[in-house]
Amino acid sequence: MTRLGILGYGNLGRGIEFAAAQNSDMELKAVFTRRDPKTLTINSNAKVYSASDLAALKDEIDVLIMCGGSATDLPQQTPEAVKYFNVVDSFDTHARIPEHFKNVDEAAKKSGKIGFISVGWDPGMFSLARLYSNAILVDGADYTFWGRGVSQGHSDAVRRIEGVQDARQYTVPVPEAVASVRNGEMPTLTTAQKHTRECYVVAKEGADKARIENEIKTMPNYFADYNTTVHFISQEEMDRDHKGLPHGGSVIRTGKTGAGNAHTHTIEYSLKLDSNPEFTSCVLVAFARAAHRMNLAGMTGAKTVFDVPPIMLLKDDPDFARAHLL
Amino acid sequence: MTRLGILGYGNLGRGIEFAAAQNSDMELKAVFTRRDPKTLTINSNAKVYSASDLAALKDEIDVLIMCGGSATDLPQQTPEAVKYFNVVDSFDTHARIPEHFKNVDEAAKKSGKIGFISVGWDPGMFSLARLYSNAILVDGADYTFWGRGVSQGHSDAVRRIEGVQDARQYTVPVPEAVASVRNGEMPTLTTAQKHTRECYVVAKEGADKARIENEIKTMPNYFADYNTTVHFISQEEMDRDHKGLPHGGSVIRTGKTGAGNAHTHTIEYSLKLDSNPEFTSCVLVAFARAAHRMNLAGMTGAKTVFDVPPIMLLKDDPDFARAHLL
Repeated sequence: MTRLGILGYGNLGRGIEFAAAQNSDMELKAVFTRRDPKTLTINSNAKVYSASDLAALKDEIDVLIMCGGSATDLPQQTPEAVKYFNVVDSFDTHARIPEHFKNVDEAAKKSGKIGFISVGWDPGMFSLARLYSNAILVDGADYTFWGRGVSQGHSDAVRRIEGVQDARQYTVPVPEAVASVRNGEMPTLTTAQKHTRECYVVAKEGADKARIENEIKTMPNYFADYNTTVHFISQEEMDRDHKGLPHGGSVIRTGKTGAGNAHTHTIEYSLKLDSNPEFTSCVLVAFARAAHRMNLAGMTGAKTVFDVPPIMLLKDDPDFARAHLL
Repeated sequence: MTRLGILGYGNLGRGIEFAAAQNSDMELKAVFTRRDPKTLTINSNAKVYSASDLAALKDEIDVLIMCGGSATDLPQQTPEAVKYFNVVDSFDTHARIPEHFKNVDEAAKKSGKIGFISVGWDPGMFSLARLYSNAILVDGADYTFWGRGVSQGHSDAVRRIEGVQDARQYTVPVPEAVASVRNGEMPTLTTAQKHTRECYVVAKEGADKARIENEIKTMPNYFADYNTTVHFISQEEMDRDHKGLPHGGSVIRTGKTGAGNAHTHTIEYSLKLDSNPEFTSCVLVAFARAAHRMNLAGMTGAKTVFDVPPIMLLKDDPDFARAHLL
């Protein structure tokens, strides 16, 4: 049995509750929140505690799953929490991973715990797809396509524009680019050739839609480098048609082998997800199992998805896995 | 540097030569053959030895890659070779994996070596896809589709029919079945609903084609449960259009999460391979690297793809992997 805790109760925290309930070897013991615990209604029998009470529960939880954001929460919370628990986070600021790894590694080695960082699907399962396919096809090219799915960062960026009441942004892979890559053509693709961006926007009454559309399409980093379409819709349409958080994508590597590099091979790992946070939660719970097992086996320090023998993620034992999954 | 040997010089052995040449940390030292070594012309600078000389080279090779067949070679050869070397084999008789694992494990623990079994793409990379997706989506269904690709076992079976001069059999997934699975419909599929079989046959002069076609279509285990089509072609057409050994397929798992299991997720791992033996060779070489590293780290015994931290497969170091692949 692995006793789980959650720090942070948003979409991801709620996803962990569902995922823990699906795994008979997991018991969700505690939800920690920065809000007033009395104001929180949750979907399970876990107890709700203040985030400031973490240390007091250090003997009652095997793995704490970090459900905060990557921008400001996790860089501070994960090295702190790993003083008391094995932890798993979904830190996804790719450029800052080496620094975050180092901070968590130092704290985890000191406390004798395991600190998994950057677990989820990208980084996470997509990273594994990249690593395996690079280890196999040495002479090749990598492609990652995201979507069709909701980018919360881009949706937030649109919402911050004056006159915008609500917004939802979908990242969409360009079908011709995906087809060319799958076909082993190893194309060189610009940013705009890989993805388009679709925005659904509810404008405030009387707002200048032409200005909003222009501000979106010219926004640096977020939209300026892409072909972006903007659809103005009513709040009713937004609530009816754009409530979900679907996402997904594909990691594709094509490579050459043999005499004269005559043979082409394509490896593709694809996800199609109805709910981004619920799927991410399933991944986090599987790695929480591994964190607990690795720590029981005497391992400590920061870890990523690259460091786990896959068998440690599975509830079933190795004999079963060899007989039924190999 | 990992010093490699090959036991058996067929399609797979030749593939290992190419794969070793693509990996700058690999050096192919020796090819062992059951034929007269003097009669063997190879594509690299490795030395050719008789298979009976294995033991004499035990200090000059770090990992021996087993390139024999699963039916009779590997069950005998792998436990024998692991007395002297770390070994990697591609044993693919799924039903006999537990027994083969046990035999290799005993011998490898005694000799202090690593014995990887069942490495390749199925078993191998497809097994990993099944394990990861089962660990993540606990409440779901698994599907494996093979092809479109050449099944050498089925091609051989057709060649054994009286009046057949040459034959090539393609396993083909049924597009409607794949589409339904990808769509998250979790269909229950019979054998015939998942794959069809296409045979290209060169009949000997004067042979009764109707009888040959009937013998193929009613052959138990191989064809009787499938929709099979038979095309009679000339030897020229066979040599021109069916020389290659392409293969591939998809492992798909769909699962449900969330309140009322309302959300469906699909994980798919797909391969499209111009050359089945060359791709399998690339996988074997990556696991040979891991075998060497694991043994240097003090590990021994039988291993499968489930037991390796993925980072051990990659030539690049963990810092590089975290910065560029995570």
